[in-house]
Amino acid sequence: MTLDVQHLIATRRDGGKHTREEIDRLAEAAAHGDIPDYQLSAWLMAAYLRPLSIEETAWLTLALAGSGARLDLTGLPKPWVDKHSTGGVGDKTTIALLPILAACGLTLVKMSGRGLGITGGTIDKLASVPGFRTDLSPAQMKEQALRIGIALTGQTPDLAPADKVLYALRDATGTVGSVPLIVSSVLSKKIAGGAETIVLDVKCGSGALAKTEAQVHELASALRHVAVECGLNVRVALTDMEQPLGAAAGNALEVVEAIRFLRNDPGSPQEERFRSLCHDLAGLTLQAVGMGDRSASEEAVRSGRALEKMRVWFEAQGAAEDVISEPERLPRARTVRLIENPHGAGWVERMDANTVGQGVVRLGGGRKRKEDLIDPGVGIVLRAHVGCRVEAGQPLFEVHASDEATLEKVAARVLQGITVSPEPVPERPLVLEVL
Amino acid sequence: MTLDVQHLIATRRDGGKHTREEIDRLAEAAAHGDIPDYQLSAWLMAAYLRPLSIEETAWLTLALAGSGARLDLTGLPKPWVDKHSTGGVGDKTTIALLPILAACGLTLVKMSGRGLGITGGTIDKLASVPGFRTDLSPAQMKEQALRIGIALTGQTPDLAPADKVLYALRDATGTVGSVPLIVSSVLSKKIAGGAETIVLDVKCGSGALAKTEAQVHELASALRHVAVECGLNVRVALTDMEQPLGAAAGNALEVVEAIRFLRNDPGSPQEERFRSLCHDLAGLTLQAVGMGDRSASEEAVRSGRALEKMRVWFEAQGAAEDVISEPERLPRARTVRLIENPHGAGWVERMDANTVGQGVVRLGGGRKRKEDLIDPGVGIVLRAHVGCRVEAGQPLFEVHASDEATLEKVAARVLQGITVSPEPVPERPLVLEVL
Repeated sequence: MTLDVQHLIATRRDGGKHTREEIDRLAEAAAHGDIPDYQLSAWLMAAYLRPLSIEETAWLTLALAGSGARLDLTGLPKPWVDKHSTGGVGDKTTIALLPILAACGLTLVKMSGRGLGITGGTIDKLASVPGFRTDLSPAQMKEQALRIGIALTGQTPDLAPADKVLYALRDATGTVGSVPLIVSSVLSKKIAGGAETIVLDVKCGSGALAKTEAQVHELASALRHVAVECGLNVRVALTDMEQPLGAAAGNALEVVEAIRFLRNDPGSPQEERFRSLCHDLAGLTLQAVGMGDRSASEEAVRSGRALEKMRVWFEAQGAAEDVISEPERLPRARTVRLIENPHGAGWVERMDANTVGQGVVRLGGGRKRKEDLIDPGVGIVLRAHVGCRVEAGQPLFEVHASDEATLEKVAARVLQGITVSPEPVPERPLVLEVL
Repeated sequence: MTLDVQHLIATRRDGGKHTREEIDRLAEAAAHGDIPDYQLSAWLMAAYLRPLSIEETAWLTLALAGSGARLDLTGLPKPWVDKHSTGGVGDKTTIALLPILAACGLTLVKMSGRGLGITGGTIDKLASVPGFRTDLSPAQMKEQALRIGIALTGQTPDLAPADKVLYALRDATGTVGSVPLIVSSVLSKKIAGGAETIVLDVKCGSGALAKTEAQVHELASALRHVAVECGLNVRVALTDMEQPLGAAAGNALEVVEAIRFLRNDPGSPQEERFRSLCHDLAGLTLQAVGMGDRSASEEAVRSGRALEKMRVWFEAQGAAEDVISEPERLPRARTVRLIENPHGAGWVERMDANTVGQGVVRLGGGRKRKEDLIDPGVGIVLRAHVGCRVEAGQPLFEVHASDEATLEKVAARVLQGITVSPEPVPERPLVLEVL
C-alpha cells in the first residue's frame, strides 16, 4: 500500500481516525524523505488542532520507534530501565539516579538529549566532566551496560529517524506543544532504546514546558496511557518546577551537587530537597520492577555502593580525572559572588525557576539556539528555597560567572524572581502526584 | 519590520487576530520565497481550522493583489468590469457575457484560468477556436480593451505571485476548501487585474465546488463582504449547478452554444436556459454600474451588436477562421451518437452535473491532472433538462467522442445520473439568490 498523503491530511483536518497502516506508512515515508516537508507540516498542524486519540498516538509511537534501528538489549540482565524528565531548571536527577538504580541491580541504558533554552540537558552536564564521552555507539552501550549496568549516550542518529524529521518540523511550525506529538516523540525514543520499564518525571511550573497543573496532568496522563498501550511498564511522577530543583543550576555545578549527594556529604536544605526527590523517583522505579522501595535507594547511597557505581560509570565513559574524589577538578567560573537578601527578614515566597534558568542561559551555561556553545563552569547556586526563613542581608544565591558585567545583570534579574513574605510560607511539595 | 513567522503561525493556530502589517509581510515573503513552504503550509492548515475574519481576509486579499505587478487600466473608458464564476459544468457564460456587456459600453478586462477536473476553463474553451490567443501581455490587453472594450488572457505570471505560491501549497495540503482562502485567492486576482466592479457567479450543486446551499451561501456571503471591505463594487449571484448549464459541455461545443446565442439562432429549451442566465447576469452587472438592466442585455443580442462585438473580439485575439459565421470550422469529434431515454415516458427528475462533467473528462475534454492535454472537439450535448417532458426512446443527450469504446462507457455512466419520474417535476430555478 502506498500512502495517500492528501487523504491522510484531510482525515486529520476533519478530526477523523487514522488506520494503523496509515500511521505506519506515514512514519516510514517521513523517515525516508518520501513526503515533502510542506505536507508533513500541514499534517502536524492539523494534528495539533485535531489531536490524535490515545490509540492513534500509541500507533504513532510504535511506528516512530520502528522507523530506524533499535537497540536490542538481549543478553543484558533484566529489568531494562529508562528514566525521562520533561526538563526543568537544576534537574540533575539522572546523574544520581542511574548509579543508585544500577547499585540496586537494575540495567540502565539511556539516550539523553542536549539542552535548549532554560532546560539543561544531562549530556551537557556530563560533558563538563573532562574526558567524559557522550557519543557511545550501540555496541559500546551494550558492552558497557553488561559490564557495569549503566550506559548513557547522546541520541544516536539512526534511532527513530522519523521522529527526528517530525521534531525538526514541529520546532519550525508552532506544533511543539501538542500533547500527543510530545508523547509519541518521548516514548518512541525510549522504545527504540530498548527499555521495558520507564519512569517519567513530568515537571510542572514556571521552569517547565507545562506551566499549569491542568497542562501537566494532561501530559502525564497521556504519557501513561500511551505507554501502557505500547506495552511498557510505566510510572509517571508529576513534580514541582515552580522553583529550581535543589541548589545548583549550571552544568559542572550540577554534577558537583550529584557527586556530593552520593558521597553523603552534608547537604544544604536545598540539596536535601534534591536528594529527597531522587529517593522518591528511585523508590518508584524499584517498586515498578518489584525490587524494593525508597529505603533500598537510601541504603544504596548510605552504603557508598551508589558512589562506587558512579565512579566506575564515569571511568567507563572516559572521565580523565577523578572528579568524584576531587570535584574541584571540574571546570569553574572565573568570578563567584554571593547575592544577599535585599528585602527585610521573612520567608521566601517565590524563587522563580524560569528567571533562574534564563539567568543560567545568560551566563553562558545554556543555549539560546541549537548551535550555541556552552560554558560548563557558570551557573547559579541557591542558598534559599520557597518556605525557608531568610534574614535581611543573608545570602540568597551565588552567581558563578565568567565576567563581572554579566554577573551584575544576571544577579539583578534573578533577584526580581525572588520575593520574601513577612508571614511564614509553606514549603512546596516536591512530588505533586504519581500516576 | 521583519516577519516573525513562528509568531504568525502561533497566532493563527490559537485563533488570534493578525495585524494588517503581519499579513502584508506574509504575502510579500511568500511572493519572494522568503518563507519555507513547510511554514507556509502550517499557517495554511491553521487558517483552515481557525478561519480568518472578514477583515483579515480583506487584508490578505489586498496584500496578495499587491504582491506583484498590477494591471493599470488608466486611460480605458470606465466602468472597468470583471466577471468570475466559481466553476461548473457547461458554464460558457463568459464567452457570451463579455461581448454583450462590451456592446453596452462597459470595459471588460479579464484574466481567466484553465480547467481542472469537471470544471471547464474559459481559456480552454476559447483555445478551441483556431488561432485564438490566450496569452496576451498586459500591454496588449490594454491596447485591445481600449480599441474594442474586451480583452481576455490566461493569468499572467507576475500578477498576484503570492497567491500562486499559496494556491500551489493549498492544493497539496488539503487546504483548498477554506472559504477565506478561496475568497482571498479569487478577489486578489480580480483586484490585481484592475477591475473596480465585479460580478460573481457562485455555483451550487453536484457540479460545483460547493455542494449545498449552506456552503454556497457561506462562500457567497464571504465573497461579498470581503469585496466590499476591499472597496470593490460587487454583485454576487448564487446559481444552480445541480444540472449542467444550458445544452453543451465540452470545449468547442460550448463555444458553438455561445455563438448560436449571439447569432439569435433558434435555441433548444436547454439553450434558452443558458441564454436566460446570461441576461440575468448581464442585467445585474448593468445595474451595478447604473447603465441599464436585463432589457439592455436582451436588446444588445437582438440587435446583433453583441454578435458584432464577439466577431471583433475573436478577430482581435487572433482567430484564424470565421467560426462565428461558420461554427462548423471548430474542431469536431469523430463520432457522435444520440442516447435515448431508456426509461418510460415522464419528466426528467435528475440530470446530474457531476456525472456529465466526469463524462466530459473521460471523453478527453477535461483534465484529471494539470499537465493533461485536452481534446477540444469532444463533449456532451443535453437534449433534456430537469422538469422537461420526455417520451420513451426520445434522445436525452448526444455524446461527441473520439472513439466508440469510450463513447459507450461515458454514455452508460451519464445515463446513471439521469432519472425520469412518472409525475411532473418542477424546473429548477437558475438564480437561487442575489447578494
